[in-house]
Amino acid sequence: MKPTPTSPPELTPLLVFGAHPDDIEFGCGAVVVQETRLGRASHLVVCSRGEAGSHGTPAQRVVEAEKAAAFLGASVQFVELDGDAHLEVRAIHALKLALLVRRVKPGLVLAPSLAENQHPDHWRLGRLVRDAVRLARYGSVPELREEAPHTVGQLLFYAVTPEAEPRDLASLLIDVSAPEIITAWTAAMEAHASQTSARNYVELQLARARLNGLRAGVSHAIALFANDPPVLDSLAPLSRGARRF
Amino acid sequence: MKPTPTSPPELTPLLVFGAHPDDIEFGCGAVVVQETRLGRASHLVVCSRGEAGSHGTPAQRVVEAEKAAAFLGASVQFVELDGDAHLEVRAIHALKLALLVRRVKPGLVLAPSLAENQHPDHWRLGRLVRDAVRLARYGSVPELREEAPHTVGQLLFYAVTPEAEPRDLASLLIDVSAPEIITAWTAAMEAHASQTSARNYVELQLARARLNGLRAGVSHAIALFANDPPVLDSLAPLSRGARRF
Amino acid sequence: MKPTPTSPPELTPLLVFGAHPDDIEFGCGAVVVQETRLGRASHLVVCSRGEAGSHGTPAQRVVEAEKAAAFLGASVQFVELDGDAHLEVRAIHALKLALLVRRVKPGLVLAPSLAENQHPDHWRLGRLVRDAVRLARYGSVPELREEAPHTVGQLLFYAVTPEAEPRDLASLLIDVSAPEIITAWTAAMEAHASQTSARNYVELQLARARLNGLRAGVSHAIALFANDPPVLDSLAPLSRGARRF
Amino acid sequence: MKPTPTSPPELTPLLVFGAHPDDIEFGCGAVVVQETRLGRASHLVVCSRGEAGSHGTPAQRVVEAEKAAAFLGASVQFVELDGDAHLEVRAIHALKLALLVRRVKPGLVLAPSLAENQHPDHWRLGRLVRDAVRLARYGSVPELREEAPHTVGQLLFYAVTPEAEPRDLASLLIDVSAPEIITAWTAAMEAHASQTSARNYVELQLARARLNGLRAGVSHAIALFANDPPVLDSLAPLSRGARRF
Amino acid sequence: MKPTPTSPPELTPLLVFGAHPDDIEFGCGAVVVQETRLGRASHLVVCSRGEAGSHGTPAQRVVEAEKAAAFLGASVQFVELDGDAHLEVRAIHALKLALLVRRVKPGLVLAPSLAENQHPDHWRLGRLVRDAVRLARYGSVPELREEAPHTVGQLLFYAVTPEAEPRDLASLLIDVSAPEIITAWTAAMEAHASQTSARNYVELQLARARLNGLRAGVSHAIALFANDPPVLDSLAPLSRGARRF
Amino acid sequence: MKPTPTSPPELTPLLVFGAHPDDIEFGCGAVVVQETRLGRASHLVVCSRGEAGSHGTPAQRVVEAEKAAAFLGASVQFVELDGDAHLEVRAIHALKLALLVRRVKPGLVLAPSLAENQHPDHWRLGRLVRDAVRLARYGSVPELREEAPHTVGQLLFYAVTPEAEPRDLASLLIDVSAPEIITAWTAAMEAHASQTSARNYVELQLARARLNGLRAGVSHAIALFANDPPVLDSLAPLSRGARRF
Repeated sequence: MKPTPTSPPELTPLLVFGAHPDDIEFGCGAVVVQETRLGRASHLVVCSRGEAGSHGTPAQRVVEAEKAAAFLGASVQFVELDGDAHLEVRAIHALKLALLVRRVKPGLVLAPSLAENQHPDHWRLGRLVRDAVRLARYGSVPELREEAPHTVGQLLFYAVTPEAEPRDLASLLIDVSAPEIITAWTAAMEAHASQTSARNYVELQLARARLNGLRAGVSHAIALFANDPPVLDSLAPLSRGARRF
Repeated sequence: MKPTPTSPPELTPLLVFGAHPDDIEFGCGAVVVQETRLGRASHLVVCSRGEAGSHGTPAQRVVEAEKAAAFLGASVQFVELDGDAHLEVRAIHALKLALLVRRVKPGLVLAPSLAENQHPDHWRLGRLVRDAVRLARYGSVPELREEAPHTVGQLLFYAVTPEAEPRDLASLLIDVSAPEIITAWTAAMEAHASQTSARNYVELQLARARLNGLRAGVSHAIALFANDPPVLDSLAPLSRGARRF
Repeated sequence: MKPTPTSPPELTPLLVFGAHPDDIEFGCGAVVVQETRLGRASHLVVCSRGEAGSHGTPAQRVVEAEKAAAFLGASVQFVELDGDAHLEVRAIHALKLALLVRRVKPGLVLAPSLAENQHPDHWRLGRLVRDAVRLARYGSVPELREEAPHTVGQLLFYAVTPEAEPRDLASLLIDVSAPEIITAWTAAMEAHASQTSARNYVELQLARARLNGLRAGVSHAIALFANDPPVLDSLAPLSRGARRF
Repeated sequence: MKPTPTSPPELTPLLVFGAHPDDIEFGCGAVVVQETRLGRASHLVVCSRGEAGSHGTPAQRVVEAEKAAAFLGASVQFVELDGDAHLEVRAIHALKLALLVRRVKPGLVLAPSLAENQHPDHWRLGRLVRDAVRLARYGSVPELREEAPHTVGQLLFYAVTPEAEPRDLASLLIDVSAPEIITAWTAAMEAHASQTSARNYVELQLARARLNGLRAGVSHAIALFANDPPVLDSLAPLSRGARRF
Repeated sequence: MKPTPTSPPELTPLLVFGAHPDDIEFGCGAVVVQETRLGRASHLVVCSRGEAGSHGTPAQRVVEAEKAAAFLGASVQFVELDGDAHLEVRAIHALKLALLVRRVKPGLVLAPSLAENQHPDHWRLGRLVRDAVRLARYGSVPELREEAPHTVGQLLFYAVTPEAEPRDLASLLIDVSAPEIITAWTAAMEAHASQTSARNYVELQLARARLNGLRAGVSHAIALFANDPPVLDSLAPLSRGARRF
Repeated sequence: MKPTPTSPPELTPLLVFGAHPDDIEFGCGAVVVQETRLGRASHLVVCSRGEAGSHGTPAQRVVEAEKAAAFLGASVQFVELDGDAHLEVRAIHALKLALLVRRVKPGLVLAPSLAENQHPDHWRLGRLVRDAVRLARYGSVPELREEAPHTVGQLLFYAVTPEAEPRDLASLLIDVSAPEIITAWTAAMEAHASQTSARNYVELQLARARLNGLRAGVSHAIALFANDPPVLDSLAPLSRGARRF
């Protein structure tokens, strides 16, 4: 059996899913902007217009998301599933997202975590994406025929809130300490003005990233969680662990 | 706060601990030989002469371990703790190993896993190494004064047997598929002739590596387990996940 | 940021959900009756008429549930979802229950646990209630417009059977040792005569409560499980732990 | 069987154990000062003089600890076990601490958590305290004869660092939002000037408490972890859960 | 209360569910053939025709499954649910399978495991079967009226891939070392020629069984996972444990 | 590789370890007496004389243990380790127990569980026994030379109290419903009159066994926990699962 060719995969696109217009920015915006600045094409898919939220109209939310995506250097699109606060885990949704995976052909996919004690749309979207990534590989699914099968390299989960951090998956910390990354990320979060004016979401996310940074001995870091065991060519990428205290 | 400088850490030494003369080869020999061939200095520390085992004399075991280390391209030394099948978790042992860590100044340390349903020397050594890596950082420990404090980048665990794979830590798969790596690893395992003639250890380890390889879509892979969350500069090292089936 | 006002919350209503007419009584009836006797208004919501069960007609079951609620000092209502043994996790159900939460405005909600190896209606209702409690807070959900948003203080789970006790949540033991509580609880359970004549449910529940009582050094106790970390003003409520043996 | 009498236990003493002179202040100082201000006598027991640390002499550390205890309103004493960075889990140590428990007769005990991936003295002390609390109850232990048996109401664990938070015990959040509590706690932490001048420990702890506060919808909160299921007289203490986001 | 009669239950039928035409053979074919050779009637239920797979037509897949079943000595039938890659967890499906359980009256049922990071049809079918086994017992479910209630003795899960092995259930190893069992199992797997010509599934399964055999000190073994605690009449069946290394 | 011969192992001796004179009777006495009545030789090893307990003198405790063993039909011996409430995990103790294992040559060993929130002697003895069972196999341990190596078939854990039931191992329920078994077990427990007159231990254990019996649909059952995956020749022993409710 021949090993999989290991040509540099860094330039494969990044595909990021969010349930509401601000989830991606709050949950992993710093990682996205860092990747786009490293030259990776990043595409955001938002699966509602936040129409059930306490603040902001759907039209405002779309404008805010587009502004935020610009700060992140990413493209963004909206996909209609069941609507905000109404999402269900249906095969038809997973297939819709799988078709999108086939179109974008990402090497890496980011989705909200599967921890269930959070907004029900978050973890349900995480499940749908996990299924979509798998279905995108299968050859004869009728709904996916218009695009060729595609195998994603890795599916990573982000946690929109502390409660959403999965207990059963080990965290990976992405160092996002460069000041320009934090600046752009903060701008992207604050672009969701209808939300940040009502609750201190920005403080929450910066505090989380700073705490992870303190653990890692850097300025700020974002925790991600791999769906499958990472496969590495050597020990080199493992040279830093978070053990400052 | 300034971020930790991120100069290439690949060339820092690798320090590997084993409780018995053959544990390192059986548990992670393929990873060690791959690292030495990539240019990383690797040093093996064996903490008994296997004097309680059913097969082989201590003198034979030492000769076998030295022969095996040569196949791996690593140096090897023996350290006296409590003796084979007699190891206890004592502060004095952790300090002895911590002094060794300060001398070798490794970037990466490998130790047997902490899962307790295996040979009692294995997990006890794993605990001692975890403590040693931490104590090596502290400035005023009297027993460590002769060497300067040293901070290890990451502590990784290997599993000598399937039962030793920790359930509570996510696995990282190291791709060791190059035929010359498998050849050198096999030679290192077979150097422990007193053991391999009595039980099919080599078959066990190759079957484990092959099964991990099948999962990852490569020829062979070794599972390791990080003690602390890996800290990464970007998503690039995460481009491959084990999701072949 | 101003702390949440901590005016005494003991008098907020208690809202309890059950999948079948007897689940509440068997799972947490002793807690409900104790609360009603302490002056807390308690309202029971039963989500089927037990029409798939082996014993008792739907009409009988409704009568039994009303009789049992009277023993507990609680009001009771029936809500139609998918019917006994047919419950599915649908957004429309969660919204229906969320509307009910908005109407009752409880400080505390009790629901069947999420452990999946029990009657499928039990854990599915638990999930629906968890979602409902969250959705009740959101401001613009169309189905909820007729009632004002409401924030529940805490969601607690009860376990109808030993298998339903969640392994991943720590238990809280409610001391229900007063003889009049046990008497009223037993009467409420026995009100479900169509069930208790067929199987020894009452013995099962009293044995569970007695075993928890023995652990806590009291007569009887009921285990509950908090969905979210309890927030306390001081250590005073933590003065008793179950460590009798 | 008669239920345990439930006379108000709030005024029983609080006994807090720390492995190093600053562990209590960093890990749970806000809780201690809040209790002393509520009138509970609090006694701190420190089990080394920090003599292995990178900064500060033992004499300085003792002075700092005494100054910090004064800010907390607590008494403090030093107990000799094996010395900093040398602690082992020995029966003789547990018995020494058990004798102390019998002398102080606390209703509540606080100890460092049992999570093993932290300073080895921390979790070893946690284990010793857990054993000590149990041994204090037994009637014929020769080393404990000079004091009468004593039963502690509850043993709670605190986490000195994020890594020390136990994954297998549910957290309880203690609201410490009153500005005077935060002020006194900060003063107690900064009393350890030899440590805080070297690393940003104070920022770390305030960030952790703020993040827990954000989750709970208050200013600041400290997470504690109960060794045994809390036993409660009613649902009243459970009226607030951390579910702000 | 009288104990359940313990007349020899070995001859009750075995009912095995698979989501795709080859899942049963790959996941637990060796166990099935061993049971049929011991005289137990075995019936396979396949819940799709593999119509979404990358290789093989539905017609081919059915022929392959029938050929494989013959090698296992089992009967086989196809049941229509939502179709390959489209399965959803619906009450109507669980009821359909429950009716089948009532018809076959098995003592033992085998189903794909509930671990969610595998083909979405696998774990969803596992959940449906778990619910079906429970619903088959209830007396008044309208959809099940045409058959009498039936209580299954035990529900066991098999894992089609290594990732599907549940972490939260202890494994039971079934010794399938007899050469004729391995031969028949291999023939049944190879009967799925459309699949085995595309990927090395047979090597994967034989490597898994060999690794479990090495652990148990036998030639080959298959891991199964019990949904409920096994109830045993004595310690006799527990005389062998997997502790070879 | 030839499979292990599977001649009937039922008649191999049973070796049971207890930390205090009454632990075996309270934790698994019903299982022991059932085995002796089935013809299996059972030998009890008690590792202290209960000299630290609140009730009973060491001399009384020995007499009680001998009387209890007679009710169980088992022989009993006392082994000196560190004394009651003083047990430590030392290599020398594991070796002492390993020598005993070699002498008795049991097929099955029972030991107290490893859950750490119980009497510290209990779980420490559990660990020592687990190590002893392993060391008994190794060929050249000097302290074990006087007896030939012996391989135990399975190590099972029992839980003296509810808190001691391990969360990470699946339970196996042993049906002990025969009235004569319960009678003999009760007599053996009551033989420890110095203990049972002070606390309601007998009620605790009968309530636990009854609750497990209710779950299993029988009169009484005892939960045990296997250290290693059970290896079975077929599915026949798995025909009963505990799923009554």
